[in-house]
Amino acid sequence: MNQTVTNKPFIAVLSGQRQAVPPIWMMRQAGRYLPEYREVRAKAGGFLDLCFSPELAAEVTLQPIRRFGFDAAIIFSDILVVPYALGRSVRFEVGEGPRLEPLDTPEKISALATEADFSKLEPVFEALRRVRGVLAPSTALIGFCGAPWTVATYMVAGQGTPDQAPARLLAYRHPEAFSKIIDALVGTSIAYLLKQLDAGADALQIFDTWAGVLSPREFARWSMEPTRRIVEGVRSARSDAKIIGFPRGAGALLPSYVAATGVDAVSIDWTAEPKLIREQVQSKVAVQGNLDPLALITGGAALDQAVDDVLASYAQGPHIFNLGHGILPETPIAHVEQMVARVRAYRG
Amino acid sequence: MNQTVTNKPFIAVLSGQRQAVPPIWMMRQAGRYLPEYREVRAKAGGFLDLCFSPELAAEVTLQPIRRFGFDAAIIFSDILVVPYALGRSVRFEVGEGPRLEPLDTPEKISALATEADFSKLEPVFEALRRVRGVLAPSTALIGFCGAPWTVATYMVAGQGTPDQAPARLLAYRHPEAFSKIIDALVGTSIAYLLKQLDAGADALQIFDTWAGVLSPREFARWSMEPTRRIVEGVRSARSDAKIIGFPRGAGALLPSYVAATGVDAVSIDWTAEPKLIREQVQSKVAVQGNLDPLALITGGAALDQAVDDVLASYAQGPHIFNLGHGILPETPIAHVEQMVARVRAYRG
Repeated sequence: MNQTVTNKPFIAVLSGQRQAVPPIWMMRQAGRYLPEYREVRAKAGGFLDLCFSPELAAEVTLQPIRRFGFDAAIIFSDILVVPYALGRSVRFEVGEGPRLEPLDTPEKISALATEADFSKLEPVFEALRRVRGVLAPSTALIGFCGAPWTVATYMVAGQGTPDQAPARLLAYRHPEAFSKIIDALVGTSIAYLLKQLDAGADALQIFDTWAGVLSPREFARWSMEPTRRIVEGVRSARSDAKIIGFPRGAGALLPSYVAATGVDAVSIDWTAEPKLIREQVQSKVAVQGNLDPLALITGGAALDQAVDDVLASYAQGPHIFNLGHGILPETPIAHVEQMVARVRAYRG
Repeated sequence: MNQTVTNKPFIAVLSGQRQAVPPIWMMRQAGRYLPEYREVRAKAGGFLDLCFSPELAAEVTLQPIRRFGFDAAIIFSDILVVPYALGRSVRFEVGEGPRLEPLDTPEKISALATEADFSKLEPVFEALRRVRGVLAPSTALIGFCGAPWTVATYMVAGQGTPDQAPARLLAYRHPEAFSKIIDALVGTSIAYLLKQLDAGADALQIFDTWAGVLSPREFARWSMEPTRRIVEGVRSARSDAKIIGFPRGAGALLPSYVAATGVDAVSIDWTAEPKLIREQVQSKVAVQGNLDPLALITGGAALDQAVDDVLASYAQGPHIFNLGHGILPETPIAHVEQMVARVRAYRG
């Protein structure tokens, strides 16, 4: 881990420099638990309209920073803008999540574009520029993409699925065809992340939400290796790029993931085993996480204890405080305030 | 691991004695992928009618043994017969899974019975006696129950849930009330497992299907500690009882689970990390698992490779070949035959 001179505590941690008070942000911090978000969301039209309005996307990105003073903002967008830029149809149905045209046979896959139309994503880059323009210098701005495996699970099934069985079966039955989806996503993701850096992102996160359903062999092939290629591709153009990987549910495979991918940090979910993480992950890279979002909904003494468990487990090393997954819409704002105050009162 | 004299390879492995050819069975092996099962199921009426018909439950228990010569039969039943014996209403809706009266407030929980009516479960014991009466001496018969945590997730929510949030929130908000559910399940499960041993079961399995959603602190309190109490309770009456734990998704928490609970073996899902399992789990107890059920659906070279991966990972120690979770209804029978032949051709 190279030591970077920075005025951003969040970036310092990604460079391996532990902070006495861990920097803090929350996955999905621009979201429905905030009344000011719901107000903007209501006037934006569809979900993708919000993602592709630079003014509104910048506004909701900044809302949680204004309210809680988080150490990092994450650009408001969605992992499925990448298949959209690859020419796939992507819609968001109210209350039902994303709907895509399923890409579930080798025949359909052979027609998949490998070059993305980045003009479609220009509003995301413009939103990044706007946010970076007004963000305090000490606050980091995070760009992101979905990991190829996770994005592919939606592209294959055409929607979210409880067990990602359609993509897993396609990968078993037609690994060459499935590789074509992955390859298109690797190339597009590299270019997309670089453009986010150009537009003002200080760091990048790769979300592999469904990494935890794969056997070790499939995890190596479909999660680790494509992520490694993205990290390598981004670094070949921007050697200083700071990259966080989030292979949710990877559990005991996390040490291999760190070694194989070259990420600067891993985000961990709330089921992680602290000793393994400290000894085999945090000894190599920074760790981000991992409060149970349901403890945040609960509040009170249960929340204090869960916050303290996270700090006791990880705050003696390079650590960014975060949730183990996205904040849930029904979370009371007072509980977020309670969590932030408790983390900031920590003196490790 | 005490060395037991037995003519059952399955029991020998549970006693720590590695077999050159690993014994094999499949979770949910009496199930809808078998035409002979579907035939019995159609004439049984409801799902619980099948569970509570000694003749039909014995018949479907034996079907996969006749067809594949598995080394173990598992009594056909369901983990929700325990709340049923505790007086809860339990129904199975076609295509929708179980429906119970939700037990989701401290007030409702205070009225929960702590003594089960085991006369309701007499058909299960009778089915065990019938199966044991006709099973070859070399074939083991497995009795089972759900772990208190997993059974409680259904009792609290009244149905299956994607993330077990109702039980997790109740456990955070009202740990004392939630403990009452767990305590009732611990006591009932001990008695239920002992009665299954009395009726002819050679070994027991405790299914903790939803163990993987808990943080380390909650896992210790709601999964490991109740399981430890069950193991201790069963052993206090039957010191020779062989018990397999299956905390699905426990990942890097498995070594702690083995140390805390005292089980003779753990069943592992297909996402397990082989090195951790070998060094920290199989060095202590037998390991059962862990073929990806989707590899079994796929068949062909992908299935061969997945079978070989499991054997290469675990068959050098005490190992029972199994799936990482239950067999899926759409699995071709020919693929089960392919898997069995490949495992039995193994010479480790």
